[in-house]
Amino acid sequence: MSEAGARGSASRLHEQLDLISELLRKLRRPGHLPQPGTDQGFRESQLELQRLLDALHPADIAYVLEALPLEDRLAIWQRVKADRDGEILLEVSDAVRESLIADMDDHEILAAVEPLDADELADLVEDLPTEVLPELMASLDAQQRERVQAALSYPDDQVGALMDFEMVTIREDITLETVLRYLRRFDELPAQTDKLFVINQDNLLTGVLPLHWLLVNSPEKTVSEVMAPDVNTFHPTDDAYEAAQAFERYDLVTAPVVDGSGHLIGRITIDAMVDVLREESESEALSRGGLREEEDIFASAWKSVRNRWAWLAINLVTAFIASRVIGLFEGSIQHLVALAALMPIVAGIGGNSGNQTITMIVRALALDQISPASARRLWGKESVVALVNGLVWGSVIGTVAWMLYDNLPLGVVMTAAMTLNLVLAAFCGVGIPLLMTKLGRDPALGSSVMITAMTDSGGFFIFLGLATLFLM
Amino acid sequence: MSEAGARGSASRLHEQLDLISELLRKLRRPGHLPQPGTDQGFRESQLELQRLLDALHPADIAYVLEALPLEDRLAIWQRVKADRDGEILLEVSDAVRESLIADMDDHEILAAVEPLDADELADLVEDLPTEVLPELMASLDAQQRERVQAALSYPDDQVGALMDFEMVTIREDITLETVLRYLRRFDELPAQTDKLFVINQDNLLTGVLPLHWLLVNSPEKTVSEVMAPDVNTFHPTDDAYEAAQAFERYDLVTAPVVDGSGHLIGRITIDAMVDVLREESESEALSRGGLREEEDIFASAWKSVRNRWAWLAINLVTAFIASRVIGLFEGSIQHLVALAALMPIVAGIGGNSGNQTITMIVRALALDQISPASARRLWGKESVVALVNGLVWGSVIGTVAWMLYDNLPLGVVMTAAMTLNLVLAAFCGVGIPLLMTKLGRDPALGSSVMITAMTDSGGFFIFLGLATLFLM
Repeated sequence: MSEAGARGSASRLHEQLDLISELLRKLRRPGHLPQPGTDQGFRESQLELQRLLDALHPADIAYVLEALPLEDRLAIWQRVKADRDGEILLEVSDAVRESLIADMDDHEILAAVEPLDADELADLVEDLPTEVLPELMASLDAQQRERVQAALSYPDDQVGALMDFEMVTIREDITLETVLRYLRRFDELPAQTDKLFVINQDNLLTGVLPLHWLLVNSPEKTVSEVMAPDVNTFHPTDDAYEAAQAFERYDLVTAPVVDGSGHLIGRITIDAMVDVLREESESEALSRGGLREEEDIFASAWKSVRNRWAWLAINLVTAFIASRVIGLFEGSIQHLVALAALMPIVAGIGGNSGNQTITMIVRALALDQISPASARRLWGKESVVALVNGLVWGSVIGTVAWMLYDNLPLGVVMTAAMTLNLVLAAFCGVGIPLLMTKLGRDPALGSSVMITAMTDSGGFFIFLGLATLFLM
Repeated sequence: MSEAGARGSASRLHEQLDLISELLRKLRRPGHLPQPGTDQGFRESQLELQRLLDALHPADIAYVLEALPLEDRLAIWQRVKADRDGEILLEVSDAVRESLIADMDDHEILAAVEPLDADELADLVEDLPTEVLPELMASLDAQQRERVQAALSYPDDQVGALMDFEMVTIREDITLETVLRYLRRFDELPAQTDKLFVINQDNLLTGVLPLHWLLVNSPEKTVSEVMAPDVNTFHPTDDAYEAAQAFERYDLVTAPVVDGSGHLIGRITIDAMVDVLREESESEALSRGGLREEEDIFASAWKSVRNRWAWLAINLVTAFIASRVIGLFEGSIQHLVALAALMPIVAGIGGNSGNQTITMIVRALALDQISPASARRLWGKESVVALVNGLVWGSVIGTVAWMLYDNLPLGVVMTAAMTLNLVLAAFCGVGIPLLMTKLGRDPALGSSVMITAMTDSGGFFIFLGLATLFLM
């Protein structure tokens, strides 16, 4: 059970990682390689490393594997007891999992994943080499196979792909005393069990019995007297992130999953939901940063290049467009070269301000706080904010430009261009995510690149255009 | 208890929000204002609104309040039953809480917060007007007051500020039968209770008894036979985010908090830890986006301006520095105006690539995956990635520049500048977060602004410098 075994605080874990790296280095010292068996220190290091690894929780081994370069990672992976391989594969990130599975032969893979539950198997299946799948499926009993297939039939972002099938169900016409006796026949309860699911003979969910209520109520009462009839129930096609938000909102630990006619088919648990919340926020951070997906920091340079190419290419196109906008005004720049030095300020501040707005709107959309009615109000407010910022900071930088180049009209153009570009940034900062949502797309994805493209090209056009009109 | 009452899925919640907005609009129709009492439709709308609100979970009311503009928000707030005010204040974001408290008089505030537990009170205290605090503290009994003060004595990011004091403790020499009888004397168990804490007569924590084990073991066994002696125990000065990561790693629901000598002083629960995880990822997203703190989307324009000024000012300084770098080369630009059009491409791609690197490094640092030894390796790898990207994309854009301006040397300079700026971006993308961590600062904070400042000024300097050396 999850309570056993010493656990590390983050700092202790870090110490252990250092110790493991140190031991690996000792074991690799060239002097030791010729006759490892004869060297006392070598054997001791080996034993100590093995002791350390055996004492670690699978989640901690996963952490160690993530934090080690590929060569050391595989050295550790080979020393981990085979019966824990499956659990560890579940804990590591997709990128690291790939590197570990690549190091295993088919037989090892099968041995690692066979002890897993159906929902866990379903999580791993897509990362396994296809040639082991027939043998794996054949090794499952009919019920397990059906469950794996059920879990695989839902996309990753739906509740059905995350539900598990380990749960305790009871009937509503029995007494709590009977429930207590029934539970004592278990060796252990499914992890995270905080409630029992009450079903009738047709397997329809009629309520839940929290363990708390089982414990505080008199054993003579019946389940139906004590149970809660109305619960947070999910459907397998519900959006996983919305379910996770419900877990967060209502402080849930587990919740039942029912099909369209109310039959209990599984449950979801807080640990899966915490993973969903983390993945959601990470993928947002990654896509903002221009990475396609989570990256193993020790991945080969080639893998990293591929992961980053898509966004770089998009950025190259938007930068080229901005460059052509400048190209339109080469005559003006030739005439007044100060324009070249000042134009990045207009574009840069617009980008920063637009990113502020879009960050806030994307967050509010993720929390479902924006209705069509409030969109207009937000546009109004953001325009006011942009006007204030534009007039204040635009005047500051306009004054600096005036002083620097001793050219008052240039300062005025600078102020006007800053203000207009900030208003453009506000308009796009509210509009782009709303439009993306309307088109059914993730508003976070590429939001930063898009707003920056608008404020760069727009800023150059506004500033150089105004300069051409009024200063030439 | 938390199981009662119908709950909304996200979409149902959204519908209810629309309904509430609709009802509020009806209640505000000018035609109704003169004699509201005489109008049947008005009274019905009022009753329906009240019915809707009374049926909502406090967390759902918090959601509704967050999603409504200030005026509507306060109209709803006044209709919420006073005995739920405290719970709702705990659920809303800091920015919205401020707007709600500003609308309450001292008497209402005291009535709202008095039913709360010590740890909840401590969460709210800093948002309350100072003049109510003496009366509030006087209304608490000695134990409560001591607990509030204990919680207030820890900074927000430590476990001590998040622990609660509602927990069930037992002795280890009694039988499970006695434990079961003891629990039946409770009306309900503290929320989230998944384990009982076993203490000796000196209040030292000697183990934990998961409810699961209480249920599956024979009632004749004693607590000491069944309990787990070794647990995930936290200290009040532990970092809250590290504790939350431990909850995530080990799938915990609750964990004990002990002082330096091992006395049990409180517990932390998964719901508080989920909030910590969310706040951590949000504050990262916000600071990347250049917002000082979480913003109420319906905040006044003035509040928004203040929230965004700090980053805009910093950005203005960095943009000005970049502008002065360009200023150094005005002679070259005058001579070859194509430089002005091409220079933003060099800076822009560098910024994008640097942001990719820094996003990945910041994430790996947050997960504690980078040791000093691996830093050198990362620098090496990122430099290779930058070289590949620089040579490939630099050649593409260099060729385009060559064609466009019919100037081969210009194309070569462009390619070289792109490559060098990407290498600079890689160097800073790894170095800045490592340096920030070494200085004890949050590596996420401002990372995007800093890397962009480096790649802008650096990109302009490299490109214009090379052009001046080789093309003039």
